Amino acid sequence: MTNQRPISCGLDLCSVPDLSNCLFAATSSRFEFICIPLVHPLFKREFISGVVKNRPGPLTRPDLVLCTSDWNNLIIGKISSHIKVDAKDLNYRKNSEETLNQELSLASHLGLAGITLKLIGGIEKNINLARIINDKLSATCNFQIWVQIPMENPLKQALSYREEENIMVENTWEWWNGFRTVCDYDKKLAIALIVSHDLPESEEIDRWLGEPVRCLILPTTLFITNKKGYPVLSKAHQILIKKFAMLEVQFILTGANRYSSITLYHNYLDYLWKNCQIDGPVERFARGYEDYLQCPLQPLMDNLESQTYEIFEKDPIKYTQYQAAIVQAIININLKRETKLDKLIIMVVGAGRGPLVRAALNAAKLTNQEIKVYAVEKNPNAVNTLQALQGDMWGDKVSVVSCDMRDWCAPEQADILISELLGSFGDNELSPECLDGVQRFLKDDGISIPCSYTSYIGPVQSSKLYNEVRQCKDKDKHPLVNFETPYVVHLQNKYDIAKPQPLFKFKHPNKDEIIDNNRYEVKTFDVEQDSILHGFSGYFKAILYDNITLSIEPSTHSPEMFSWFPIFFPIKESIQLKKGNKIVLHFWRRCNAKNVWYEWCISEPIIGSIHNPNGRSYTIGL
Amino acid sequence: MTNQRPISCGLDLCSVPDLSNCLFAATSSRFEFICIPLVHPLFKREFISGVVKNRPGPLTRPDLVLCTSDWNNLIIGKISSHIKVDAKDLNYRKNSEETLNQELSLASHLGLAGITLKLIGGIEKNINLARIINDKLSATCNFQIWVQIPMENPLKQALSYREEENIMVENTWEWWNGFRTVCDYDKKLAIALIVSHDLPESEEIDRWLGEPVRCLILPTTLFITNKKGYPVLSKAHQILIKKFAMLEVQFILTGANRYSSITLYHNYLDYLWKNCQIDGPVERFARGYEDYLQCPLQPLMDNLESQTYEIFEKDPIKYTQYQAAIVQAIININLKRETKLDKLIIMVVGAGRGPLVRAALNAAKLTNQEIKVYAVEKNPNAVNTLQALQGDMWGDKVSVVSCDMRDWCAPEQADILISELLGSFGDNELSPECLDGVQRFLKDDGISIPCSYTSYIGPVQSSKLYNEVRQCKDKDKHPLVNFETPYVVHLQNKYDIAKPQPLFKFKHPNKDEIIDNNRYEVKTFDVEQDSILHGFSGYFKAILYDNITLSIEPSTHSPEMFSWFPIFFPIKESIQLKKGNKIVLHFWRRCNAKNVWYEWCISEPIIGSIHNPNGRSYTIGL
Repeated sequence: MTNQRPISCGLDLCSVPDLSNCLFAATSSRFEFICIPLVHPLFKREFISGVVKNRPGPLTRPDLVLCTSDWNNLIIGKISSHIKVDAKDLNYRKNSEETLNQELSLASHLGLAGITLKLIGGIEKNINLARIINDKLSATCNFQIWVQIPMENPLKQALSYREEENIMVENTWEWWNGFRTVCDYDKKLAIALIVSHDLPESEEIDRWLGEPVRCLILPTTLFITNKKGYPVLSKAHQILIKKFAMLEVQFILTGANRYSSITLYHNYLDYLWKNCQIDGPVERFARGYEDYLQCPLQPLMDNLESQTYEIFEKDPIKYTQYQAAIVQAIININLKRETKLDKLIIMVVGAGRGPLVRAALNAAKLTNQEIKVYAVEKNPNAVNTLQALQGDMWGDKVSVVSCDMRDWCAPEQADILISELLGSFGDNELSPECLDGVQRFLKDDGISIPCSYTSYIGPVQSSKLYNEVRQCKDKDKHPLVNFETPYVVHLQNKYDIAKPQPLFKFKHPNKDEIIDNNRYEVKTFDVEQDSILHGFSGYFKAILYDNITLSIEPSTHSPEMFSWFPIFFPIKESIQLKKGNKIVLHFWRRCNAKNVWYEWCISEPIIGSIHNPNGRSYTIGL
Repeated sequence: MTNQRPISCGLDLCSVPDLSNCLFAATSSRFEFICIPLVHPLFKREFISGVVKNRPGPLTRPDLVLCTSDWNNLIIGKISSHIKVDAKDLNYRKNSEETLNQELSLASHLGLAGITLKLIGGIEKNINLARIINDKLSATCNFQIWVQIPMENPLKQALSYREEENIMVENTWEWWNGFRTVCDYDKKLAIALIVSHDLPESEEIDRWLGEPVRCLILPTTLFITNKKGYPVLSKAHQILIKKFAMLEVQFILTGANRYSSITLYHNYLDYLWKNCQIDGPVERFARGYEDYLQCPLQPLMDNLESQTYEIFEKDPIKYTQYQAAIVQAIININLKRETKLDKLIIMVVGAGRGPLVRAALNAAKLTNQEIKVYAVEKNPNAVNTLQALQGDMWGDKVSVVSCDMRDWCAPEQADILISELLGSFGDNELSPECLDGVQRFLKDDGISIPCSYTSYIGPVQSSKLYNEVRQCKDKDKHPLVNFETPYVVHLQNKYDIAKPQPLFKFKHPNKDEIIDNNRYEVKTFDVEQDSILHGFSGYFKAILYDNITLSIEPSTHSPEMFSWFPIFFPIKESIQLKKGNKIVLHFWRRCNAKNVWYEWCISEPIIGSIHNPNGRSYTIGL
């Protein structure tokens, strides 16, 4: 819920005798755009045969009635509802095809930003329509197509007083799912969701959040009158709008005005919209990055830039947690050793520009403990900063070591080894490999902060991400490479098919006889409603020390922490899921001397191929 | 069944004390290669823990015992059966992983042409194995991997005396299907099918014909003794071998020799193999083109070459049928008009090098009918041939017209319009468009030969074709283009999931008020057993005249006619089918002023996207 832009609410008009006047009236009532029939039904014509074949005269109003920029920005065109290109009757069908092509061509001519049409029924009743729309989209189509879908199957409402239980009513999400699948997820195809009086289950509403809902259509009959006599929405509908505000939806108001002025509806929606805005640190940080795919950082291979350090040092939670963990570790070491040590040796490996050194020094002060800190950093530019801080502020409590931690030969053993090498998926920036190497400098009873971390993984439906991954084309690469690469992404337009589950766990120090950071785990997820699997979202939870944690796993997310976005593992082919299905995911972490990578594969509900074999598309370099 | 190469039969050895001697003995007994264990089980070692950890000494026999070319050509290596990389026990699993990698690496070192391993159980029990094999295949693997699959689930045989009905026994085809799906259909992965005593249903056997079966493993216990005391196979097993001979399989004989000499088995198999060879005109013509993808001809846009004319003029059936049709048409015209006409006007449109002119002249002679033939041809090189024939042989009975039939202005009206513009899919070389243009020169009661044609379409499983389509990479094109293009192909390695059904029908002359060659049909196919859909095979059947037909639709195929191979329409994503599923296929023929093309889409059992929207990947140029 990070929107910052003003509300955009259009007014639906069923009849437009004078377009210019109607537009003026709507904008005077504060509406941002209007929806109008492209062709008046009275002008309906037939091509193959029928009474109105060869009707003379113009098809519809001329383009001259508005200036181009008004056509471009203020008008959504409605396709005539009498068009039925899937009619059984061959003449009716061919006629409808001609009419539809004519209306689509008119919309192009006028330069409309969008057209809208209403879907009635599932794909088996609309496949020719989908084919024609898809053909239009595949060719040079410059407008969006808003497919109107009712939130509730009208049949269900009609049946509600009878024996609803016994009759299977198709969920309208299936209508959309079929239609966009035939249209191969075209980006210009979006949903205009018609909000119903009785809202569906919250799980069903959530599923829409994984779809490209661009618009909510609000019938005026949804509004109730408050004590002051103004139109307002019920609590349930307010919550619905809040949910969708996250997706930056627009609105269309439809139906007869029942108040002194139509402006009152707009005023209320504008008020609601402004109230949907949350403006915490995470939202400020993430703004503009919603569902934007980023390649994971490889800080081991690449040196971070000053700006990157600066951004992450601003996290309001992370270093507070580290400091608390160090305090606790110092206390426990002293308790355990029974006598307070003169001086504790603390190593900060991957010290960056020093935030963890600062946390260690603060912790020492709080516990009144003498310490010696080794700040080890491989990036010479960051070392420059560390040396300045050491000279100006830290003095001989801190020793700056300009060295890759894996090559370093420490002069003494540490009591506490502190690092922040975690990626969005926990181990994906090779924290295990780095710490395994450095732990030889840790005393037998020494403490690693973090002392363990676990990755989490969960199945996700997101048309948006699926499309983004498909778009990531790189001329030099095989097109499947995009589907075998994880992405760091601020997930918004998605639906969680099932709760994330813990995947790989690592502990430090690792006292195994033969250290093996290869992993293989199988996870099973239950599917609670029909949906589509597009990939898996990944998270981590780390125990810094004792009960002090950092987490980006949604159910335990550290409040206000913004240092990590989730990670997203796509799959090559989306999978249609049915309620009651199980998703069985196989996940491997694999290592060789130079690289670490993940491979993944689904074996249920249908078998897929291995993603990223041998790390052919994505590896993390050691 | 077009094989021409000699039999290749290997001998399976379970223990090989002296490799050089064993190889000599096997080749002396006429066997073409041998299968040997890569490592003796006594040399088994453990890596993680266990009694044989760090066993000293060599792993197995040295490479020096054979020369390189023998290793390369005569040896198939068997992976140790104690390897279980999917074991629940973590140590056993890791140990197995190391051992498997070691054996695979040894096979590479020796330069073997192939290795073999036995699959026991479904993919859920073998996914880590599949992952490791796939990793090997994706990397630089230079050998084939023959996956041994029993034709019958051993569990089924074990259960056969009990209540088999109540226990669902997984079909072993599922084992293979899961395994190769995880391995993403790698071309180096092939099947070595272990032939069972009791053979499965013929439908199940046919399904294997759609898979890359490279080898049949024949246990010696399959053989029975004939009257002369020699080993032979039962009738049912002979039929099985005939079926697979079409796929050019090799054999492996396994088990104890029960006759005076092991050579006797080989002699019998060699005899069987030679009897599998059929050598008719279709086989001779098609040899070397089995499952080879060709782009359909576009004779309307491109001129054919002399060689192409020559090949198709040799068809032993086609012109006989045409001649019979012309005879029948002449007779019927005369019957209908009651008085015999002095001279019938016959137009051959697309006369090529004249075979249909010849057929018309023959027919006239047989019916004792005077005729005048216009031979219209657009290819100037073929016109050259026609003019020579006209000058030398035909005289003024024939008038050669060097002109595209669509631009021609005929000097008179024809009684019979003869053409051969059909493609593998009937209308796919634009016969409808061409004949619609020319029919203005046909008398009202004139006859078109052909007078109608119908395309047929049926669902097909073929790993081979799926892989071939994937391989057709064109750097300049989007990789999906291959999946939106039909191919002409001599289908061999395939399984027909259901019988082909009629799709689009065209009649000539077309007397509709508005001629419309667009088409849209929906076909439903029943799935009789679990299988995978890779695409659709297309055929045609034409009625030349009366009851005289040309057909490549399998159930009515004109005997010995070789002018057309079937057409294959791939689909972008293969679909796992279950017994009882319905396949619903939507097929469009679409036309504009310049092009004709097909679009296709599946809506059941799962919804797919439209193939070839707007003809973006493939069109037929007018």
